[in-house]
Amino acid sequence: MLAITASCALVVSSQDIATFVLHDFAPITMVRTHTCGELRRDHVGLTVTLCGWVQRVRNKGGLLWLDLRDRYGVTQLIFEEGNTTPTLIRQARELGREYVIKVQGLVMQRNASNPHMLTGAIEVQVQTLEILNTAKTPPFLIEVETDGREELRMQYRYLDLRRPPLQNNLVLRHQVMQATRGYLNQQQFLEIETPILIKSTPEGARDFVVPSRMHPGQFYALPQSPQTCKQLLMVAGFDRYYQFARCFRDEDLRADRQPEFTQIDCELSFITQEDILTIFEGLVKYLFQHIKNVELPQFPRMAYAKAMQLYGTDKPDLRFGMPFVELTHLVQRQGLRVFDEAALVVGICVQGCAGYTRKQLDQLTDFVKQPQVGANGLVYVKYHSDGHLQSSVDKFFDQAQLTTWAEVLQAHPGDLMLVLAGETQATRQALAAVRLRMGDALGLRNKVQFSPLWIIDFPLLEWDTATQCYHARHHPFTAPQAVDVPLLEKQPEAVHANAYDLVINGMEIGGGSMRICNRSVQESLLRIIGFSPEEAEQQFGFLLEALEYGTPPHGGIALGLDRLCALLGSEESIRSFIAFPKNNAGRDVMLKAPAPIAQDQRQELGMEAIKKLS
Amino acid sequence: MLAITASCALVVSSQDIATFVLHDFAPITMVRTHTCGELRRDHVGLTVTLCGWVQRVRNKGGLLWLDLRDRYGVTQLIFEEGNTTPTLIRQARELGREYVIKVQGLVMQRNASNPHMLTGAIEVQVQTLEILNTAKTPPFLIEVETDGREELRMQYRYLDLRRPPLQNNLVLRHQVMQATRGYLNQQQFLEIETPILIKSTPEGARDFVVPSRMHPGQFYALPQSPQTCKQLLMVAGFDRYYQFARCFRDEDLRADRQPEFTQIDCELSFITQEDILTIFEGLVKYLFQHIKNVELPQFPRMAYAKAMQLYGTDKPDLRFGMPFVELTHLVQRQGLRVFDEAALVVGICVQGCAGYTRKQLDQLTDFVKQPQVGANGLVYVKYHSDGHLQSSVDKFFDQAQLTTWAEVLQAHPGDLMLVLAGETQATRQALAAVRLRMGDALGLRNKVQFSPLWIIDFPLLEWDTATQCYHARHHPFTAPQAVDVPLLEKQPEAVHANAYDLVINGMEIGGGSMRICNRSVQESLLRIIGFSPEEAEQQFGFLLEALEYGTPPHGGIALGLDRLCALLGSEESIRSFIAFPKNNAGRDVMLKAPAPIAQDQRQELGMEAIKKLS
Repeated sequence: MLAITASCALVVSSQDIATFVLHDFAPITMVRTHTCGELRRDHVGLTVTLCGWVQRVRNKGGLLWLDLRDRYGVTQLIFEEGNTTPTLIRQARELGREYVIKVQGLVMQRNASNPHMLTGAIEVQVQTLEILNTAKTPPFLIEVETDGREELRMQYRYLDLRRPPLQNNLVLRHQVMQATRGYLNQQQFLEIETPILIKSTPEGARDFVVPSRMHPGQFYALPQSPQTCKQLLMVAGFDRYYQFARCFRDEDLRADRQPEFTQIDCELSFITQEDILTIFEGLVKYLFQHIKNVELPQFPRMAYAKAMQLYGTDKPDLRFGMPFVELTHLVQRQGLRVFDEAALVVGICVQGCAGYTRKQLDQLTDFVKQPQVGANGLVYVKYHSDGHLQSSVDKFFDQAQLTTWAEVLQAHPGDLMLVLAGETQATRQALAAVRLRMGDALGLRNKVQFSPLWIIDFPLLEWDTATQCYHARHHPFTAPQAVDVPLLEKQPEAVHANAYDLVINGMEIGGGSMRICNRSVQESLLRIIGFSPEEAEQQFGFLLEALEYGTPPHGGIALGLDRLCALLGSEESIRSFIAFPKNNAGRDVMLKAPAPIAQDQRQELGMEAIKKLS
Repeated sequence: MLAITASCALVVSSQDIATFVLHDFAPITMVRTHTCGELRRDHVGLTVTLCGWVQRVRNKGGLLWLDLRDRYGVTQLIFEEGNTTPTLIRQARELGREYVIKVQGLVMQRNASNPHMLTGAIEVQVQTLEILNTAKTPPFLIEVETDGREELRMQYRYLDLRRPPLQNNLVLRHQVMQATRGYLNQQQFLEIETPILIKSTPEGARDFVVPSRMHPGQFYALPQSPQTCKQLLMVAGFDRYYQFARCFRDEDLRADRQPEFTQIDCELSFITQEDILTIFEGLVKYLFQHIKNVELPQFPRMAYAKAMQLYGTDKPDLRFGMPFVELTHLVQRQGLRVFDEAALVVGICVQGCAGYTRKQLDQLTDFVKQPQVGANGLVYVKYHSDGHLQSSVDKFFDQAQLTTWAEVLQAHPGDLMLVLAGETQATRQALAAVRLRMGDALGLRNKVQFSPLWIIDFPLLEWDTATQCYHARHHPFTAPQAVDVPLLEKQPEAVHANAYDLVINGMEIGGGSMRICNRSVQESLLRIIGFSPEEAEQQFGFLLEALEYGTPPHGGIALGLDRLCALLGSEESIRSFIAFPKNNAGRDVMLKAPAPIAQDQRQELGMEAIKKLS
């Protein structure tokens, strides 16, 4: 397209300048010819150079085998009297675990190939050996299974990361990122970076803040998400945006939460909610297909209210059934006070567990009574295989009545029915915990089985009893459903949102919403959730103003990359999919951060740290 | 690979649960059928739905043309009495600039096609029109050329971003990112994210810091680059890493510097410097080919010392020649004090400028005397076309002597020689400024011409007169060249580094180095640049320790993405390639950040902002 009006011609014409090419262009002289995961039977007879870490040495006197490891795999090296010089054998004997070496040698076919190794058909007969670096004995085993405790492995994360499971996890994360981009790029999405140094907002979790040296007393905030920036990109007409967005939340860390995390952050214009669900269902299917070779079925959709009713949670694990059945009207007015006083009586049918022992049932009762589950007790009905029904409430309910329960709960001989009663939300939450526990007990929560679904029709607002104020369930930019807009002022809690969550195996993998595109609706919503007009203007003035300059209909979604990788990797902890995670106290124990900073640095920032009062 | 033991089968078997599928799956009901950049002659006769912004309405009474714009282009809509209802024409007349509309209509062939528009062969005869959103009159023209001043456009960045040049810039940036990934992925690089909340280091520019709420008095720092983390990834065996890394520097901003910026950050193990240059020269060539269809020649390489000698800078613009020629020995001891007292006398030959007037030469002299150039004066020699040499130092040098100058400077009749004298470094720097000015004057710095080169063999250390201390020219992890290691203690300033910069058109696009892989060398270097053993341990203890556990030979490079995009886009300012840049005071004038935060937020962070003393 554009011609290079060769500056090099100029250069070469001047003798003085021609001399600056000091180095001839060497051909690529890669230090190694192959990786440790590459050699196969086809390479037999080839002289190769490999580099890597000494995984293990087996010394049989005149015969030594050495497993050489790199990111790509393990290759067996062989040192053999007769074929190898005594010096070289002596050198090899002195190698320690995790030494970094470079060897040249001949690829040989093995007598008996090892089917468990990708390179198991060959070994390399070493001709030269160079120690590139030595290694102290690592503080824990660098093997698939290690003996290091968590804190030690976090401190030496760079050694833990050498272990194949963690290597594979980061490779998987790389693949997820590339496949996601491939899918979105193909659908005309543009990858656009938004700033990390933005403005603090009082909504949602706590912000991390950054004091400004140039503007003393003022602070940037790190984004909890690029929400407002991506909406402005839609106002700017970018149509389809994505970003692997680093997000920051200064929360009291629970297990497996990170103060910084990555989300696949997307926003689209000129689309409907249906379009968004279709495109991102497509993305998730593509990832499972591409990364795991798993074909996911069409994702079912469930209204929030239905999910709460059937599973007691907006994150139902659908790898198994065991739905809730409400028994309230069936069981009340029979003299059992705990039922009669309950807002909700609700049960599940656990297949094949009629044989549960007294002890097992006591354990279950203890489980539901734990503070984090919070029920007062558990009612059970065993449907014995002989048809007899035995319950913990036999005094109040006869066989005929219990038979009706069984019918409603779709229980059959051999099944166990579990029933809780109490305040609606708490009871649902407690039974949801029981359901998951029974799913675990029955082995119904298989890590290599995947059950996605969309939760839709969320309530727009929630009443917060602590602050005596409504707050936005998703975020304050979520659009109310059109039919519910008239309710916004009079009955805010009844308004549904155009919001959706993607749930897989009981985990929220992502969520999003259609956005408010109108200044006055946005102002109403901010007012309802407690912003004065002045506060709204101060915090979100730029967005309110942008809504007046030709905002297209738009919506978006964000998927949690760390969680998605953990799911695809069939592991529990997101930390295993982050190169350098923080611990539960928000510390990087390897770098030793956070840490005190110098006095002059604090002064330069116009601030002083106050010592914690002990 | 893995079977889905269909949870959906379970779901469907239970009547209760089956009802949760509230919505049938609609087919994709994209709001529009085509984009505004898509329709061609082939689409004539098709009924289409388009969405976009009203760019312009031309009203000829019974005939209206409307230009509808989206990210993909502009399509002409036509409303015509007879073919369009009067209501629709009335509606169209009332549309304002930047209204967001949706139209359905028939694709028609234009009478005379517009070759300047991609959609110039057709127009759409509108049948229905829906206003999706209104727009206030924008504060500046949303056209290729705008009337808005910079500050206003920054405040309404979302409107400025609608302009085609900025839309194209962000599309270019997207393309650069995707092409870079494609190239690196193909070469086995893994994309790995490193943390943003890390530890403050006293080296280099100032860190932005983040106070920790959970650890009062302690701070995270935002990375100036992921340097130590990427080295640890090499220790961990990841072999080839890249990341589009967000980096942060709290510097007093110069024009076109940003407090946060993005670099293409890479690190490799088991490679030589030669391999790195080859791979990344390949990347840059690939980007120019892929993005601009420009074939770059092989990149020349120049030692740092040679670059300083020939161009007075380590960032020479090689789009033109005009190399420095040293005249010191030739011109001294001829009675001209300014030459005799100079450490360096050095000149350039400016082709075809012998006709420069007195005024032009005075302007040049004023230019070199500016404080930022810093020379005391300028000596010129005009080589007239008749062979006569006329100089500003005729009193001291005769025709024969000036002829020798001309020979050495490779000047020919018609050329102008410019000579500066003084302290070596300052004189080179001044002449470098003169060279660039003359390159500009002669139109030799064409924005669509590209002259890349590698600068190599940098000095490892620089003496800092202010702190009376050596500091690392690249960073303290850069490896000294093997032959120079013995000089490290006795003659540190003579040690060369295995470091390299990529320079294109006089701009540093990237740089990197081979790294120190040995604890004791690393400790020596930290000592030489002024770290006590305790400070070294406190700051870089994790890295020093990691070096002992089997560190592979490794090195890396980082390319400035913002600058690279500006170069590929043939623009000066990196801001035009960043969605939401900050201004020169580090402010986001759209979001209004930084900003004060609430008192309770400051208290919660265990700190108080001190008001700036006025």
